[in-house]
Amino acid sequence: HDVQAKSLEDILKEKGVITEAEYKEASKAKPLDYKLGKGFVFTSPDQKFQVQLGGQIQAQYELDNYEAASKQDVSQFNLRRVKTLLSGYAFTKDLTYKATYNWANVVKDNTKAMEEVNLKYRVADELQVMLGQEKIQYSRQWITSNTAQQFVDGSFVRNAFMQGYDTGINLHGDLWQGVVKYDAGLFGGAGQNTKNKTNDNAYNFRLAFNPLGDMKYGEGDLEHSAKPLVSLGSSYYLSTLKKTVSGTGSTATSAIDNNNSNFVTDSNGWLGTAVKGKYFGTAAAENISVDSWEADFACKWLGASMQGEYFWGKAQGEASGKDLIAKGAYVQAGYFVIPKRLELALRYAWMDPNRQLANDAVSEIQGGVNYFLYGNNLKIQGDVGNRHTYKNKSDDLVARAQVQLLF
Amino acid sequence: HDVQAKSLEDILKEKGVITEAEYKEASKAKPLDYKLGKGFVFTSPDQKFQVQLGGQIQAQYELDNYEAASKQDVSQFNLRRVKTLLSGYAFTKDLTYKATYNWANVVKDNTKAMEEVNLKYRVADELQVMLGQEKIQYSRQWITSNTAQQFVDGSFVRNAFMQGYDTGINLHGDLWQGVVKYDAGLFGGAGQNTKNKTNDNAYNFRLAFNPLGDMKYGEGDLEHSAKPLVSLGSSYYLSTLKKTVSGTGSTATSAIDNNNSNFVTDSNGWLGTAVKGKYFGTAAAENISVDSWEADFACKWLGASMQGEYFWGKAQGEASGKDLIAKGAYVQAGYFVIPKRLELALRYAWMDPNRQLANDAVSEIQGGVNYFLYGNNLKIQGDVGNRHTYKNKSDDLVARAQVQLLF
Amino acid sequence: HDVQAKSLEDILKEKGVITEAEYKEASKAKPLDYKLGKGFVFTSPDQKFQVQLGGQIQAQYELDNYEAASKQDVSQFNLRRVKTLLSGYAFTKDLTYKATYNWANVVKDNTKAMEEVNLKYRVADELQVMLGQEKIQYSRQWITSNTAQQFVDGSFVRNAFMQGYDTGINLHGDLWQGVVKYDAGLFGGAGQNTKNKTNDNAYNFRLAFNPLGDMKYGEGDLEHSAKPLVSLGSSYYLSTLKKTVSGTGSTATSAIDNNNSNFVTDSNGWLGTAVKGKYFGTAAAENISVDSWEADFACKWLGASMQGEYFWGKAQGEASGKDLIAKGAYVQAGYFVIPKRLELALRYAWMDPNRQLANDAVSEIQGGVNYFLYGNNLKIQGDVGNRHTYKNKSDDLVARAQVQLLF
Repeated sequence: HDVQAKSLEDILKEKGVITEAEYKEASKAKPLDYKLGKGFVFTSPDQKFQVQLGGQIQAQYELDNYEAASKQDVSQFNLRRVKTLLSGYAFTKDLTYKATYNWANVVKDNTKAMEEVNLKYRVADELQVMLGQEKIQYSRQWITSNTAQQFVDGSFVRNAFMQGYDTGINLHGDLWQGVVKYDAGLFGGAGQNTKNKTNDNAYNFRLAFNPLGDMKYGEGDLEHSAKPLVSLGSSYYLSTLKKTVSGTGSTATSAIDNNNSNFVTDSNGWLGTAVKGKYFGTAAAENISVDSWEADFACKWLGASMQGEYFWGKAQGEASGKDLIAKGAYVQAGYFVIPKRLELALRYAWMDPNRQLANDAVSEIQGGVNYFLYGNNLKIQGDVGNRHTYKNKSDDLVARAQVQLLF
Repeated sequence: HDVQAKSLEDILKEKGVITEAEYKEASKAKPLDYKLGKGFVFTSPDQKFQVQLGGQIQAQYELDNYEAASKQDVSQFNLRRVKTLLSGYAFTKDLTYKATYNWANVVKDNTKAMEEVNLKYRVADELQVMLGQEKIQYSRQWITSNTAQQFVDGSFVRNAFMQGYDTGINLHGDLWQGVVKYDAGLFGGAGQNTKNKTNDNAYNFRLAFNPLGDMKYGEGDLEHSAKPLVSLGSSYYLSTLKKTVSGTGSTATSAIDNNNSNFVTDSNGWLGTAVKGKYFGTAAAENISVDSWEADFACKWLGASMQGEYFWGKAQGEASGKDLIAKGAYVQAGYFVIPKRLELALRYAWMDPNRQLANDAVSEIQGGVNYFLYGNNLKIQGDVGNRHTYKNKSDDLVARAQVQLLF
Repeated sequence: HDVQAKSLEDILKEKGVITEAEYKEASKAKPLDYKLGKGFVFTSPDQKFQVQLGGQIQAQYELDNYEAASKQDVSQFNLRRVKTLLSGYAFTKDLTYKATYNWANVVKDNTKAMEEVNLKYRVADELQVMLGQEKIQYSRQWITSNTAQQFVDGSFVRNAFMQGYDTGINLHGDLWQGVVKYDAGLFGGAGQNTKNKTNDNAYNFRLAFNPLGDMKYGEGDLEHSAKPLVSLGSSYYLSTLKKTVSGTGSTATSAIDNNNSNFVTDSNGWLGTAVKGKYFGTAAAENISVDSWEADFACKWLGASMQGEYFWGKAQGEASGKDLIAKGAYVQAGYFVIPKRLELALRYAWMDPNRQLANDAVSEIQGGVNYFLYGNNLKIQGDVGNRHTYKNKSDDLVARAQVQLLF
């Protein structure tokens, strides 16, 4: 039942009522179209406005097997991401907008429903201005869409060091056809969907170099690249956050106030866990200044791919005088045993959340299989990982399977 | 102002530029269409992708008159359900998706915004696989869309016994053109938009038998069926839940942990109210194993309809050794005094939430009127009910009026 | 790259296959169109159904400079409003619906995601019935869309006195081509997305008089009106709310129960702040009856515009016998120094939240600049304001810049 009906344009061309050139002209003006991975595309009759309406569903199963008998094993079904994706242009193709909503996060106490919501104006390829909320351009794996990842989800190390989404202004440019790409941004600093409540803001800078020509952010060599591609990048992020203290004496607790950034809120967030663990003490509230940078690389050729990142974060308590330094890295490689269809991948990740503390490292090794029915638009992924906590000498196993549809 | 403008296809056919067959062919390829009850339908030029965009609004007024002087009477306007309905197919008509969002539930502490969000693959009519979140196929009235109900809302007994939505895998099949229908599902077990946190999952099975031919799930004989239709069904659901205990002594409380299923969270939920009422004690946390089943029937002919369900639930505390058995039932009948236009209906429902306790039953009798302007797509409904609580010998009155629009 | 492709209709007309009249007929039946400020418009082939899908993004930067050293200054980026706008008609053009969702409010503990969600039936211009949730027709500036305001946001006085959205029934009529407009509404009374829990409801009435002909609600004379326009209006709102008391003695607190109306929840809400400030005492819970009215005017001509409102609110504690009277007003004027392009505006606002208390007034003076790239559909706004609190003799500065896109 997939036989295609003829359009009026088709019929009139066949009858000779319109010419081949007129057929193409009329088809070009198509008010409704469909783009793979983007969804339905509506264009206004004067072609000055366009909206794309798409969606994403990731249905996941996860099995957690913890070595510690006290930790509850888990067998879980999960709609990992459910998004509606609105994007388009208005008045001119140089003024674009985006509005991505993640329905899987429209649940109690969750503040992460609104994702990329912004306006962009392209002065030239070399200067594009973003106003609104977008991904802070820090960490190659975070910049890469979750729909184009080699594993079921990003590395725990990336989650521990990245900032996530924030609201502000970002300048982006592609120089020499994408051989060099830069970003310079000023953001509120409080993270996704969170209004900053101080007069300190956050700054982010990124530089990427693609010596063999522009390389899109996408893991795995799904395209089976005929020519080798290489990309090197580095980002720098600085900000000042507010540490609060509640209670007194041994029951006092410490937290970062009003901040929804991943490195604060993630279960492994390098700053959040240290503050919660009272590394900065509970003597008094204070400002904590944060410097962090990462360096990353990626390469792909004929179905083979490799990428890695090194993360470094430093936080200084202005009153306590305490210094925290955290480090982490991951490297992953994949190969399509059947080109464009079946990929195998391996990842090793490691993190030292506090250089001052001995024996607090965590490492993870993961193996993955990806089967692409229609590229990233319909694929089935599975991975199994072992996370080793040096302190407890415990090995925890996580196995996941996921079906992804972009419509 | 409802005069219809002629389309280009109409004009070219009238002028003889295209033939009747070509007209039909071109009209078949229509990229934009509207389906009653489904909304606008967009089809890609290659007809491999389709999305349907529709919505639902139920505007309700409710008046509650409680017999007990201590209970506050209520006069309330209410947007009962406000939904955007996205559905469609991708790559092939056999791969369908659904994403239903209920905006009336996007409020503080509410975890029920995302409803049916899933992928379905049709291997054959006899084997259809669902991945994601959907209605657990338990209770005829729950399986029936709320837009096709004979009363303003489902019976309180259904709400007390059903599970609601959950995430998992379900196999469904229609055998012999829908004479027999089966469902076999494995679900997380924690209910709508809630990730399971244990290694126990839930299982659900349903069998329905339509001896006189396929009978759609829909209350009332809106179609004025020329031939009688009968349907018999039965479902079985089992799971294991976690009872937690907080505090000690007489102030200790007991609850079901991390579960968003109706039979747990509903104000009459058979398990939730018993646990909250400390029937299982507060000595210690424990697993509670749940077995439950229902049997249901429906029939309709020439505007007359009748349906009913019997519910039975059993919960066993693994540590406390306590057994809970709950029972309930409802039966309702309707008749179109003006075919396809005006229906009168009557419902009786009864529930014994705990067989061990005497005098704890609740019953309800309701009368309803439905006026269909454009079928279920635009209708006005009203009902009045009296709920009798045996313990207090109290009679509480609820009157409701509702306008429903599907667009 | 804004050259327009020819449509099939264009081509066939040029070739003489169809006539000019047929061209117009076929174009009229256009299933997909775009309306400035409304978004994409889809019409069913039989023209009985239409849906409009649009969106709004307001990206804002705000700088707060507080005179009190103890108050934290703020430098903030903010997605002020992010909306998806669904509207249309079903079955007939007289039955319209609207569903506006504000994604900027889909965050923790926020109950304001769903805004205008309603059905309207037009019996005649003189009688239009609304069912569902809409803006309570009280305060000219609140009735005016936030997309058509002369400043970055409405006056703090408006926010302190208005009710906001509520669910109910409203009758509206335009008499003599809009020279007189009336509204009479019955609402739940608990405000936006909040179900009333008492048997007291709210009533609202409004009358507007446009002696020189219909004047749309929109600030600033963006249209450069050739003829002067004047509008006078007045609204009256009454309701009964429930004051609750928690705790005893000096630590007792007082609040309005279950009410999401602006005059209760806004940081300057005339009733909410008084109740929180224990003006009605903490002796016992009580009903508080509310009477409030406003009078407003607006006029515009040749790029110049002026409007103002006076607000008055009275609340009576039924048990405490306490009377609260609050008053406020604002007046603002604007002028297009470049017609339809660049506007300057000035606003003065003042509020006495409690006539019984001396020296509790607050006033604000604001200056604004608006640059219109494509009318209200793409504009850049900036304003600076000084708020004076008489009690502290403090002057607080707020500067804001905002880009608005309607798509």
